[in-house]
Amino acid sequence: VKTSVFYLSDSTGITVETLATSLFSHFDTLEINPIRRPNLSGIEDIKKVAEEISQAARESESPTIVFSSLISEESREVLRACPCELYDIYDLFIKPMENKLGIKSSAITGRSHGIGETKEYNRRMNAINFCMANDDGENILNFEKADIIIIGVSRTGKTPTSLYLALNHSLNIANYPLTNEDLESDKLPDILKPFKSKLFGLTINPTRLQQIRHERRPNSQYSSLSQCQYEIRTAEVLYRQTRIPFIDTSSISIEEISVAILNNKHLLTNIVNNFND
Amino acid sequence: VKTSVFYLSDSTGITVETLATSLFSHFDTLEINPIRRPNLSGIEDIKKVAEEISQAARESESPTIVFSSLISEESREVLRACPCELYDIYDLFIKPMENKLGIKSSAITGRSHGIGETKEYNRRMNAINFCMANDDGENILNFEKADIIIIGVSRTGKTPTSLYLALNHSLNIANYPLTNEDLESDKLPDILKPFKSKLFGLTINPTRLQQIRHERRPNSQYSSLSQCQYEIRTAEVLYRQTRIPFIDTSSISIEEISVAILNNKHLLTNIVNNFND
Repeated sequence: VKTSVFYLSDSTGITVETLATSLFSHFDTLEINPIRRPNLSGIEDIKKVAEEISQAARESESPTIVFSSLISEESREVLRACPCELYDIYDLFIKPMENKLGIKSSAITGRSHGIGETKEYNRRMNAINFCMANDDGENILNFEKADIIIIGVSRTGKTPTSLYLALNHSLNIANYPLTNEDLESDKLPDILKPFKSKLFGLTINPTRLQQIRHERRPNSQYSSLSQCQYEIRTAEVLYRQTRIPFIDTSSISIEEISVAILNNKHLLTNIVNNFND
Repeated sequence: VKTSVFYLSDSTGITVETLATSLFSHFDTLEINPIRRPNLSGIEDIKKVAEEISQAARESESPTIVFSSLISEESREVLRACPCELYDIYDLFIKPMENKLGIKSSAITGRSHGIGETKEYNRRMNAINFCMANDDGENILNFEKADIIIIGVSRTGKTPTSLYLALNHSLNIANYPLTNEDLESDKLPDILKPFKSKLFGLTINPTRLQQIRHERRPNSQYSSLSQCQYEIRTAEVLYRQTRIPFIDTSSISIEEISVAILNNKHLLTNIVNNFND
């Protein structure tokens, strides 16, 4: 049986969906039918959604679940009358926080942070542009402006991690691929030396690396196990000898790699949130 | 007064931090001192954090706030004894969901989805690679494999939106910049015609576009107001005449643009979550 899950928001609904997706990962056997209803703006919208919820509840044996980040009391009252398991972010968090902190929330639907103009917006866009321009050592002149330089042999996860950190933390991330030439020299490439404190290394299990490279260039020297073993072994020796912090990405996600880097470099940038959810 | 906020997790802590960041955006006057404690694995870790929480509470007049996605009952009991405002994801969501759904959560700390090997992992990596290879019309041969093709004149938000959708929804996103030549022809570029149902247009306020372009290439024809006005006017006429859905990105975030595209194309892909939070 698929469980219908509604995501209701007066903005994007990304907050409730992200939260719910994480919660559902704790229930392996649960099958979800996601129903997104963002940009709900008036009581008429809410009444229509309430009707959809009632219909879903009638049609399924499994309970209908609703996650809502709606703020207006009138809308939330309509939801409370629906035949569903309701998780109301306002009731669960915002109201207790108001009481505890002794300050009122700006409970205005669609409150605008003037997103288009803000410094934060520009910082994020600049970080994304920086990341695109400094991917795979393309533009080594910009290492000066980088917050972090991720290094590693080809296909260890440098690019996805860089993009994640740029998008979610507005950080300027460069990445540099360790080439065969770099590895043979047995020391840190000269162009990286002035930026040693910014370096973070990625490594990976050679068998896993071989699988990944095989998908890209099957049956090549590049994707041979012996080549992967050589590159990983040499890169790890380099990290250890030069005391560059590094992490094994074989069985962790982009998010886990990113958090490890943020912690290691003591970067306390907040997660970007400019979607008014 | 800065309010200390702890993010506790046996994994990355991204779920609680994302949620909290969204909640705090409702409190304009609140200043946050974020304290991240991911990868908490044993009771000794928790006791150390409990001591940090107590110290923060002693040192501040403002209440200390703790967001926790810890699962173990033993750890959560230690937290409940701390002098703080505790938001415990297990108590608030997982326990009620267990009761309502009549199934047990896999309450195992650090449960592994075998991330490195999963189809979902590969799908995400392939989406990111696809996005990088198909940015700014670089590789037009791959439009066949695209889920969506984002079009628009230079600096309307195509690249950041493409990256967001690749990272968070594992979608294959291509983007295509409408050039002056395209605009002068007054019709859809030939290479886009076979893929009309995949197209989504971006537009922007010409004054805003001028600001953005000015930062990139000051005092150029490219960043002149008249050029921006011409390009936007012509692109919008093209969208309307060829019935391509489009959105104005002047004052909305990457997340809001992305949700609009997902809804318009009826794409029901779930948000990626493979960080075990």
